[in-house]
Amino acid sequence: MAANHPPNHEHIDHEMLKMEVNLDDISGEVLGYLMDLLIESGANDVYYTPIFMKKNRPGTLLQLLCSQENLEKMKEILFTETTTLGVRYYPLSVHRLERRFRTVSIEWGTVTVKEGMYEGQVIQSSPEYEECKKIAKQYNIPLKKVYEQVWMQLKQ
Amino acid sequence: MAANHPPNHEHIDHEMLKMEVNLDDISGEVLGYLMDLLIESGANDVYYTPIFMKKNRPGTLLQLLCSQENLEKMKEILFTETTTLGVRYYPLSVHRLERRFRTVSIEWGTVTVKEGMYEGQVIQSSPEYEECKKIAKQYNIPLKKVYEQVWMQLKQ
Amino acid sequence: MAANHPPNHEHIDHEMLKMEVNLDDISGEVLGYLMDLLIESGANDVYYTPIFMKKNRPGTLLQLLCSQENLEKMKEILFTETTTLGVRYYPLSVHRLERRFRTVSIEWGTVTVKEGMYEGQVIQSSPEYEECKKIAKQYNIPLKKVYEQVWMQLKQ
Amino acid sequence: MAANHPPNHEHIDHEMLKMEVNLDDISGEVLGYLMDLLIESGANDVYYTPIFMKKNRPGTLLQLLCSQENLEKMKEILFTETTTLGVRYYPLSVHRLERRFRTVSIEWGTVTVKEGMYEGQVIQSSPEYEECKKIAKQYNIPLKKVYEQVWMQLKQ
Amino acid sequence: MAANHPPNHEHIDHEMLKMEVNLDDISGEVLGYLMDLLIESGANDVYYTPIFMKKNRPGTLLQLLCSQENLEKMKEILFTETTTLGVRYYPLSVHRLERRFRTVSIEWGTVTVKEGMYEGQVIQSSPEYEECKKIAKQYNIPLKKVYEQVWMQLKQ
Amino acid sequence: MAANHPPNHEHIDHEMLKMEVNLDDISGEVLGYLMDLLIESGANDVYYTPIFMKKNRPGTLLQLLCSQENLEKMKEILFTETTTLGVRYYPLSVHRLERRFRTVSIEWGTVTVKEGMYEGQVIQSSPEYEECKKIAKQYNIPLKKVYEQVWMQLKQ
Repeated sequence: MAANHPPNHEHIDHEMLKMEVNLDDISGEVLGYLMDLLIESGANDVYYTPIFMKKNRPGTLLQLLCSQENLEKMKEILFTETTTLGVRYYPLSVHRLERRFRTVSIEWGTVTVKEGMYEGQVIQSSPEYEECKKIAKQYNIPLKKVYEQVWMQLKQ
Repeated sequence: MAANHPPNHEHIDHEMLKMEVNLDDISGEVLGYLMDLLIESGANDVYYTPIFMKKNRPGTLLQLLCSQENLEKMKEILFTETTTLGVRYYPLSVHRLERRFRTVSIEWGTVTVKEGMYEGQVIQSSPEYEECKKIAKQYNIPLKKVYEQVWMQLKQ
Repeated sequence: MAANHPPNHEHIDHEMLKMEVNLDDISGEVLGYLMDLLIESGANDVYYTPIFMKKNRPGTLLQLLCSQENLEKMKEILFTETTTLGVRYYPLSVHRLERRFRTVSIEWGTVTVKEGMYEGQVIQSSPEYEECKKIAKQYNIPLKKVYEQVWMQLKQ
Repeated sequence: MAANHPPNHEHIDHEMLKMEVNLDDISGEVLGYLMDLLIESGANDVYYTPIFMKKNRPGTLLQLLCSQENLEKMKEILFTETTTLGVRYYPLSVHRLERRFRTVSIEWGTVTVKEGMYEGQVIQSSPEYEECKKIAKQYNIPLKKVYEQVWMQLKQ
Repeated sequence: MAANHPPNHEHIDHEMLKMEVNLDDISGEVLGYLMDLLIESGANDVYYTPIFMKKNRPGTLLQLLCSQENLEKMKEILFTETTTLGVRYYPLSVHRLERRFRTVSIEWGTVTVKEGMYEGQVIQSSPEYEECKKIAKQYNIPLKKVYEQVWMQLKQ
Repeated sequence: MAANHPPNHEHIDHEMLKMEVNLDDISGEVLGYLMDLLIESGANDVYYTPIFMKKNRPGTLLQLLCSQENLEKMKEILFTETTTLGVRYYPLSVHRLERRFRTVSIEWGTVTVKEGMYEGQVIQSSPEYEECKKIAKQYNIPLKKVYEQVWMQLKQ
């Protein structure tokens, strides 16, 4: 992260990396495990894209975003947990919105809502998934109903 | 195939099967090998679809089309070559066009063209890939140029 | 549709078909055109799935849903507009919810909302996309803002 | 399951269903939640396929496999948790291998291995993922190393 | 675009950007709308890739190509129309062919053909889709027939 | 490749390129041909990703990795063999493991195993696919059995 910006203010971070690995000789089981491990170990995001590789092989493109200070840690995990012999990476910039949090009360409890600020205005409002999920499970109601109630309260 | 239709006449075949296997613990290397093996062993077609399975696993849906008489052979290959514990299948109908073949001369030789007949009319004309590929390789010209020459001759 | 159910009541339709075509020698341009043509000609739905076919070919699986009375019309379009030599199909059942419509007023006009009834209760509420899009374009506001306003009104 | 086959013997089950829903107006967040819910509620398997729908919409095809006795339960979840107005389904057959379990000792503990029997012979050996994962986490070793050790012991 | 090259001459443009957003909490309906909006607002190209994200979420990777002068406009649309809190981007080079246009007469009218010049030679010939579509609709003939007629004329 | 590192030692190569082309007016047949041609002509890797493009077109993103010295050769093939009017590219770094080879004896012959060295330790062991395939074909045994035998020997 650029050193002179508090992390939750709107800013442009020019120190990010995208890392990539093509995989055609690993199982989906291991990739499911790996995604969580990379996120717990400092990756900002990890995602898989289905790709078609040589010799008729359905494969997986692993992509992850991380700060440059996490590069070596990410490499170590990718080399030891996957079957790859090479890891690619290149720099990119990220424009990040300022993030704020508010609490909203609904029929079944309270839910935190993450707000995104663009040029000083709230333009994103995102109920926290884990909290909505917990309410849906506890009260045995559809998850979409929990989100609907939160959105309704948000607008008032 | 319906017994009273010569195979290359337009007909509807009600004796086909689609078979399916979900795979999340096999490598793309093995799947590349398997596709050819299934086709050589009597499958009419085999194709892979990327799917997202439980526990964050990128997986592959193997689908194949075969006649009912090949069901047991296909099962044996699927069980012995993949890691699955179950193979699904269900019947389907196929409306197949009559197929005819003609030969077309182009600058670099001759190419077979497969024609599809729908209600007595030619509606598909498909140059044989392997022959076009061979010409492209031999004369070191773009494959699309070979196809273009064939299409141009076809229409005359 | 089963003859003795008015079409917009909750019912199970056992007379539907799924049709399928695998395509590896057609361009995306033609497929984009074809989707609209099939829907205008009576298909209930059409969708494309990326598949990996033999000889390293990225291909497209065309699937469409239609009633049995539209089977011949759909076949004709698939054979004349695509490059396929065979069309597959099989029957399936569809459980359809009763659909009702209501109108909601928001800051920029009115929007129709389609409601789905399951066992007599409203469980789906879906603002009509084309109307929301028209408002977003006319007033130059984000589409998501239009949806948010509709959802807010819905719940009151 | 066919009533007269103990569930873990090799058998063909002709009473299975595949259910399908096309979704273009739901978020990935809800779909991640839904997959687990369906499996906990009796689905044999659930998987998502990326599809391209009309009006340039990237969508998701939800497919699930279940026994006919679970049809109504699955429908209820699909209608209440998703945004769909229709659920499709059709019957299929599943050939299932007999499953056996054995225990294997490795350097870091014991792991259960699921074996698949085809015509009386062991043809699949699959270490239990959750147990391997637990060992990998506890001893801070790569998951692939745990699998390798299990495979090595299996063959002796 | 590099200032000293007329835009339709073969040239290498080192001032292009690729922008990327990962989306897991937005509907396909909104993404269909967004693609057109971005292109109308100055994006050179926009495309969606299906990705698998954490917590079992099927998601969408939005990628767009634009010139650096359109960066701020694109950001504004991405932030206001989607649910993202961050937009990534990085520079790339584009080698673009010179484009020329010619007109071809076929049985049902005339069609513009875009030609690509590589090192002074025509290597691409692409009939304009919208014109071919209009003819196919007006004369009720398969789109592929229109293309075939154009290609046939092209070669003479 | 960085000039002062022998190619099979662990090293970071800062001189690699990724090239990209979006394709919506080419057939899968030609793309299957193209993949092999690019690899034979010096690409380090080539892979296809399914993408959704404007006007409802299912398309293909071609990506390839090559050294900067192969840039012009790759461009020439992409322009002459595909239908594109533009080729994109950008630099990236690749961390490559040292590669070593050993030979393993199994019941049906010998198999070369490629090993990857990370900071002086063997962390990858990959049996050569073509050799395993040849044995599987010759002895008519499942490919996975050949791999299993190799892995078993590796660990001793």
